[in-house]
Amino acid sequence: MAREIADRRRRVVIVGGGFAGIHAARTLRRAPVDIALLDRNNYHLFQPLLYQVAAAVLSPAEIAEPIRRILSRQRNCHVYLNAVERVDPDRRVVVHEGGEARYDYLILATGATHSYFGNDGWADRAPGLKTVDDALEIRRRVLLAFEEAEQEADLEVRRAKLTFVVVGAGPTGVELAGALKEIAARTIPDDFRNIDTTTARVILLEGAERVLPSMPPDLSERARRDLERLGVEVRTGAMVTDVTDDGVVAGDDRLPAANVLWAAGVQASPLAVSLDAPLDRRGRVLVEPDLSVPGRPEIFVVGDLAHAADARYEDGVPGVAQAAIQMGKHAGRAIAREVAGHGGERPEFRYRDRGNMATIGKNHAVAELGPWKVGGWLAWLLWSVVHVAFLVSFRARIAVLWNWVWNYLSYDKGARLITGSPRPRVRRTLTEDEVESVAPRR
Amino acid sequence: MAREIADRRRRVVIVGGGFAGIHAARTLRRAPVDIALLDRNNYHLFQPLLYQVAAAVLSPAEIAEPIRRILSRQRNCHVYLNAVERVDPDRRVVVHEGGEARYDYLILATGATHSYFGNDGWADRAPGLKTVDDALEIRRRVLLAFEEAEQEADLEVRRAKLTFVVVGAGPTGVELAGALKEIAARTIPDDFRNIDTTTARVILLEGAERVLPSMPPDLSERARRDLERLGVEVRTGAMVTDVTDDGVVAGDDRLPAANVLWAAGVQASPLAVSLDAPLDRRGRVLVEPDLSVPGRPEIFVVGDLAHAADARYEDGVPGVAQAAIQMGKHAGRAIAREVAGHGGERPEFRYRDRGNMATIGKNHAVAELGPWKVGGWLAWLLWSVVHVAFLVSFRARIAVLWNWVWNYLSYDKGARLITGSPRPRVRRTLTEDEVESVAPRR
Repeated sequence: MAREIADRRRRVVIVGGGFAGIHAARTLRRAPVDIALLDRNNYHLFQPLLYQVAAAVLSPAEIAEPIRRILSRQRNCHVYLNAVERVDPDRRVVVHEGGEARYDYLILATGATHSYFGNDGWADRAPGLKTVDDALEIRRRVLLAFEEAEQEADLEVRRAKLTFVVVGAGPTGVELAGALKEIAARTIPDDFRNIDTTTARVILLEGAERVLPSMPPDLSERARRDLERLGVEVRTGAMVTDVTDDGVVAGDDRLPAANVLWAAGVQASPLAVSLDAPLDRRGRVLVEPDLSVPGRPEIFVVGDLAHAADARYEDGVPGVAQAAIQMGKHAGRAIAREVAGHGGERPEFRYRDRGNMATIGKNHAVAELGPWKVGGWLAWLLWSVVHVAFLVSFRARIAVLWNWVWNYLSYDKGARLITGSPRPRVRRTLTEDEVESVAPRR
Repeated sequence: MAREIADRRRRVVIVGGGFAGIHAARTLRRAPVDIALLDRNNYHLFQPLLYQVAAAVLSPAEIAEPIRRILSRQRNCHVYLNAVERVDPDRRVVVHEGGEARYDYLILATGATHSYFGNDGWADRAPGLKTVDDALEIRRRVLLAFEEAEQEADLEVRRAKLTFVVVGAGPTGVELAGALKEIAARTIPDDFRNIDTTTARVILLEGAERVLPSMPPDLSERARRDLERLGVEVRTGAMVTDVTDDGVVAGDDRLPAANVLWAAGVQASPLAVSLDAPLDRRGRVLVEPDLSVPGRPEIFVVGDLAHAADARYEDGVPGVAQAAIQMGKHAGRAIAREVAGHGGERPEFRYRDRGNMATIGKNHAVAELGPWKVGGWLAWLLWSVVHVAFLVSFRARIAVLWNWVWNYLSYDKGARLITGSPRPRVRRTLTEDEVESVAPRR
């Protein structure tokens, strides 16, 4: 019996084709295993640039690559488009929408989604930014807001349409707020006749005392200065207590705004619950030092779904791309060692922080690279180079570069399309006479 | 009274931002008029390349440009995102979703949609290709079909998933069929493990006796040969009599197919009905020689919505991009002359045919340019040059060129993303043992 199992090729099931899942699969490319990678989407997404899809700079195809194509040459790996419903760790199967997949080893890498801190009713009013469809929805809302303002006669409503509130000042929130202000102030002013888009307000709310709370205080200060110079209103120590149809309530402040975008909480994918393992308050699995689930050495949890304790970080290894990549590789290597017959204790995972950065509009960014801290143009250049270099395909690299060069030279954002059906909502349309009276003076 | 009207700037309302509408607006750029251009979408679409979005080669933003941006510098033109509901010619107003727009001159350029010859129930089963959202829906269905086939255990169902029927062999149908076969045979075979995508069938059905019926017979013959060499099954004289959930019925033939794409009938936009003008059997307005509506000299109908009689064409000036552009300019010029006080008889519209072309996969096309007829590689090169040159923006030209170069060198289609929510539907998923037994031999 033991012999039979040893002879058979082990089945590795990987759930999730993000950074962690893809790198786990690649690490196993020469291992004598059969891999099935399941994902609910057919693409791997380069999430750090997703805000640029929401900001109409890039098209989805420029930052997303079919998972099949990435793993095309890896003959020991099957890819299936399937949403996984739960794990049955006792039977060692993963239950998905099309049936079940049996595993000898399981790597769970389903990541995180946005959290509304228990107020799920806010989701419709304040869309978050995790998937391509999220980004297209935000793009649609932002562009539609300007279209609606252009024909809206009611001044109050018009002002609300031209107010954008971004909740959460982590890298995504900071980058999104900067990009929105740039669109309103630089890209589109000449395109509109009845509104002055340069007067559009972009308000960035953060519950903590500074923006980019995960970065050093002096870089936070620099980022705040850059944002304010661009025209973004930054409010720190501002906890959102309600999101209504008319805007946002933060403490005693009521901000009338037709556009609220969510870049705040992060919540682990609900799949973790079915593992029957200890979770932290954000729903992440408290993994062993080798990234396996306590009592289930055959199950690894990697990426944003894992809470890996680390003395350097209060809240575990941070949920960033490089941590996910390192975890995916670690799990892949552990499995490769074991199927090759190298027993003994598994090595512990140790996160190597290679630096963090965030960009703020054109020519400005902040970056932390080990002991170095940089801001301004140099950081911006560095940010651009690093992000292009890490894209999966050569095709995408050239395409993104071209869009950035174009955007840099012209301020034009190339992907300003409103797709999907919904129509503009205008309370009262401008009459012919009003059209002449409202034209902004320039 | 007459004096008062002469002093006031005339209001020109243009409905539709396609080739005809945009060129009408541009022609009026120096005229002392106030223009309002209304469109239900915020973008102008380069329709001749739309099939490449459906075929996952290009992203929507590469062939669509915001109408506002195109007309950004033209200060006498307002652009509104509004779907027009009807025209009230007696009151001289256009009724749209947000209110009304009064006109002195009206240019109707709302184009055409696909027609199911009275069988509107077919629309869901056989999506057509007119808008960006249509193209994304076709892309989604095509890519999803391969994903479903990869996990489908039932052989019949699997074969149906790998069968694509394109109805209609005009330029769009021919180009779409060629692109689909190329995807299946060249782009994705290595990406799948359980199916051999090179065995996917692409069937092109045409009611007439030859493909590309609007082109000369020898080019039709050449196109057919090129399609068949690529592996497309061409069936002419095949009238579709039913589209069911299981496939297509054409005469006595039942073709089991999970994917039916519609590139056949064309029906004028329903707006024409409200004009109370004579229509042809496809719903197009039978316009006067100057493109105005009989009895309504202040209303012009241009582009695919117009039936302009022409001795050279049985069915009026053909519904192609160059005809729409010429009509739009003609209407614009007629209005500019009149507001400048040049009275007298209006000149007649005369269509200048500059040529027609269609491409069939890589390296093959057919082109008719006045007395010249070309096929093969030269025609393909010509096709590529002409189509890139006519894109609206420099940004788009470079982006499209890069995608084509990439596609040419690698056969990779860069935009293979399944977006939008729906999930794969599989009748019975492959079991673990079956996975090994079905792997295609290569």
